[in-house]
Amino acid sequence: MGAILYVCTTCKAGEPVPEGDLPPGNKLHAALLAQPAPDGVRIVGVECLSACNTGCAVSLTKPGAWSYVYGRLTLDDVPAILEGAGKYAATTDGIVPWRERPTVFRKQSIARIPPLTLEEAAE
Amino acid sequence: MGAILYVCTTCKAGEPVPEGDLPPGNKLHAALLAQPAPDGVRIVGVECLSACNTGCAVSLTKPGAWSYVYGRLTLDDVPAILEGAGKYAATTDGIVPWRERPTVFRKQSIARIPPLTLEEAAE
Repeated sequence: MGAILYVCTTCKAGEPVPEGDLPPGNKLHAALLAQPAPDGVRIVGVECLSACNTGCAVSLTKPGAWSYVYGRLTLDDVPAILEGAGKYAATTDGIVPWRERPTVFRKQSIARIPPLTLEEAAE
Repeated sequence: MGAILYVCTTCKAGEPVPEGDLPPGNKLHAALLAQPAPDGVRIVGVECLSACNTGCAVSLTKPGAWSYVYGRLTLDDVPAILEGAGKYAATTDGIVPWRERPTVFRKQSIARIPPLTLEEAAE
């Protein structure tokens, strides 16, 4: 099983959404889907990652690995998000070496969650 | 497999740690361990949940369920964290009904991550 890039489709990025317009999270999801997905990455929209204060938000997760949440993302970050997701998918433990992470992943981490086994959690 | 309450032991809660003192996250971890763990909950310390701007932070996770990260926690929140962790462990999907969540979980969510299967993610 590969990695999943969850994209919050309801993120408002701290702004009211004009009537008839789509939330920024919805647009980010569409923009990510419009590009070729990196190897081993599925892009999945979800309604609310409960990161409303720091949207737009995405999360990266896969079995047996650390999961990450990133926030304050914009459409300009689409290439970096996909680059970072591809590198994440290529790891076994979810930990991409710091210097290889896109800047947006280095600077806009909201949180990470260890894998479910204690042994793996001991980084 | 039950739920795991991961506690960041390195959280500084935005303040410098005086020399010879322990980080607030370390104290929170110890305070949580000093109480009886709720049924089905293991309390595990980890070094850094990458939520440094919103520490002290904890996360709740278990297989096939939504995972949650909570932040801006203090020692005063220990009873509520344990209550919320117990309720989380008692669910199958990780989603405790809103009104049953402790106030600190309702107000101080940093992010949540869907489970790994699409079917389960479709809340």
